[in-house]
Amino acid sequence: MPLLSQRSKNIPASPIRKLIPYAEGAVKRGIKVYHLNIGQPDIHTPEVALNAMRNLDKKVLEYSHSAGYESYRRKLAGFYRNAGIDISWDQTLITTGASEAISFAVNSCLDYGDEIIIPEPFYANYNALASIAGVRIVSVTSGIEVDFALPPVSEIEKKISEKTRAILLCNPNNPTGYVYSAGELDQIRELVKKYNLFLFSDEAYREFAYDGQKVVSAMNLKGIEENVILIDSVSKRYSECGIRIGVLISRNKEVMSTVLRYGQSRLSPPGLGQIVAEASIDTPPEYFTEVNREYLARRNFIVDALNRIPGVRCPMPRGAFYTMARLPVDDADKFAQWLLEEFEYEKQTVMIAPGSGFYSTPGLGRNEARIAYVLNIGDLRNAAMVLEKALKVYPGRTQGDGSSK
Amino acid sequence: MPLLSQRSKNIPASPIRKLIPYAEGAVKRGIKVYHLNIGQPDIHTPEVALNAMRNLDKKVLEYSHSAGYESYRRKLAGFYRNAGIDISWDQTLITTGASEAISFAVNSCLDYGDEIIIPEPFYANYNALASIAGVRIVSVTSGIEVDFALPPVSEIEKKISEKTRAILLCNPNNPTGYVYSAGELDQIRELVKKYNLFLFSDEAYREFAYDGQKVVSAMNLKGIEENVILIDSVSKRYSECGIRIGVLISRNKEVMSTVLRYGQSRLSPPGLGQIVAEASIDTPPEYFTEVNREYLARRNFIVDALNRIPGVRCPMPRGAFYTMARLPVDDADKFAQWLLEEFEYEKQTVMIAPGSGFYSTPGLGRNEARIAYVLNIGDLRNAAMVLEKALKVYPGRTQGDGSSK
Repeated sequence: MPLLSQRSKNIPASPIRKLIPYAEGAVKRGIKVYHLNIGQPDIHTPEVALNAMRNLDKKVLEYSHSAGYESYRRKLAGFYRNAGIDISWDQTLITTGASEAISFAVNSCLDYGDEIIIPEPFYANYNALASIAGVRIVSVTSGIEVDFALPPVSEIEKKISEKTRAILLCNPNNPTGYVYSAGELDQIRELVKKYNLFLFSDEAYREFAYDGQKVVSAMNLKGIEENVILIDSVSKRYSECGIRIGVLISRNKEVMSTVLRYGQSRLSPPGLGQIVAEASIDTPPEYFTEVNREYLARRNFIVDALNRIPGVRCPMPRGAFYTMARLPVDDADKFAQWLLEEFEYEKQTVMIAPGSGFYSTPGLGRNEARIAYVLNIGDLRNAAMVLEKALKVYPGRTQGDGSSK
Repeated sequence: MPLLSQRSKNIPASPIRKLIPYAEGAVKRGIKVYHLNIGQPDIHTPEVALNAMRNLDKKVLEYSHSAGYESYRRKLAGFYRNAGIDISWDQTLITTGASEAISFAVNSCLDYGDEIIIPEPFYANYNALASIAGVRIVSVTSGIEVDFALPPVSEIEKKISEKTRAILLCNPNNPTGYVYSAGELDQIRELVKKYNLFLFSDEAYREFAYDGQKVVSAMNLKGIEENVILIDSVSKRYSECGIRIGVLISRNKEVMSTVLRYGQSRLSPPGLGQIVAEASIDTPPEYFTEVNREYLARRNFIVDALNRIPGVRCPMPRGAFYTMARLPVDDADKFAQWLLEEFEYEKQTVMIAPGSGFYSTPGLGRNEARIAYVLNIGDLRNAAMVLEKALKVYPGRTQGDGSSK
């Protein structure tokens, strides 16, 4: 049998998805699994989007332009202008999810062995995407002790080497729910300018901000217009994760002509998804009001419920629909697997995303887990109750202050 | 402004798509462009597939499994068994087009700097996909003089170095329309076995074979079951290029667990496309009879029409819906651009895919072009007539025997 590549051994299995076989096993044993592990909202996709499929009048499901349908790109530029981000349609390239946009940005701007700075914990798939592109993630740690705020800029500056080509921010943040302040972003802007770096800004959760928090887009940071690449997606905005439609936006012409060549290598982004995404721009504003109200209630519920569990610490996230909680366990990876394999409470259990996969520094996040509040409050209530019961009997239980048992 | 990566400079613009701006310019000048350049069929997508969208009853367009919906994979395995390819559903991974399947296969099996042997001319995007993965294509030339048959196996064996990890075949071939014989495939089988290589077999045109030609799938070559990775797509089979649904199939368990990790890095393949592709499996057999009859008539028409043009030589392709023709021109890249920028005949012109982009050996294919017969015969007749007129007045006209003017 021929040997597989060495590099393929470095691609981490998704820490969120690698537990799926255990979850499937639990379901087969008749156990109800509450999925707190994945950012798959239960929120309905807007009717206007679904109707675009039901009214489909095409005879041929043909390739689109490699940068996406022009009609969608024009309408999307209008959407961003309405959101205060002034761009033109030819500064957009439609991608197969935000994942592809990240991959195009990394390949276009970084060579093998180059470095990208990312505050950790970070979206777990950045590890896989960086590994596939052969670039090195240099992390700066945002601790749970400071509610995952950006570390002091001096800490970030220390990490810049001659191989550093870019900084990647996810704002609002997955997995922490943190929303970067204008002041924090201004410090990043100074660094980007001083060291002539690219700034990749993953803003897939822009519409999800609470408590009056404003999300400042990196596209609106002055003086670094040529440095910023915006990564975005319709997945969360309209609950359309499955259609795999993202976008890469930049005012840098060289970036746009380069990413187009990457885009041509895969011919075109998904056509049906583009039709749905284009129709989604007409989603009535009340949809978002309703969705935000719902997530706010869920957040308030789950953060309170988690903090009531002895030994659990959960900061208050201001955006997205995740929270990163510290659990009184020896190893959240083991705990997550144990929940699915060995535990049940009245035929119910909980699936969580272990924290370690969201860090690149070995050992960090071992007693943390990302909790997605994408279930209704009734389910969240049951899930929190089941989690509390589980923590009472889990053999690797600790005190919860981060010290070992 | 920060500098882009060095590697991004090596990604070739698609030779098929790079002419699009000139075509758009021609259209703006009121000129009708006959698209012989791209494999976008005008054949209607099956009704059963379109109805799957019109009857969509989902409330949430959710992520699928990273390997695709289980229901689709199970049904797809049945489709292959009916086609004489005996596989089980867990030997499939649904991809975002065949492009992604190729990319997953290359990354899983080859490291940076490793070599893959491909008969040229080959599908132009292999150049881009190999370049993105940092692997080197080593080509063996199939000449137009022998109607693009596989070169003698001794020629291929000479190209094998210690860095060779795989052979890639496209069968039926894009761009030549050549269908590999059982004897040719058996020679490849011997090489693959002798040197313990992977065999990537791109069979996206399997259903398009004429003159009683049988397409032998690489999955049915004995003794190399662990070496073969089948790349396939619904794009051409059902005229569904835009939905971006392909598949990677292998009996090698290590391959399947590795490609799954690549799949997890992009979460899931397009969901709506999977629903359409799953429904497409119920396409009635008459659809294919009709489509094959249509392509056969088109092939017979266009090959005859091209060979009637003085100085043009066009072999008879036995599969797919392309033919690679030699034109009496100095440089088909210049000629293709000239057709769009400077030529018109009664407000019509023709768009062709220049041959050079289908070769990796510099200088080859300069007087060749890929012609896709994806238009109806009326349009093909006009296109051939316009091409003949153009060749009469093109300033870079040559004798057509491959010698310069």
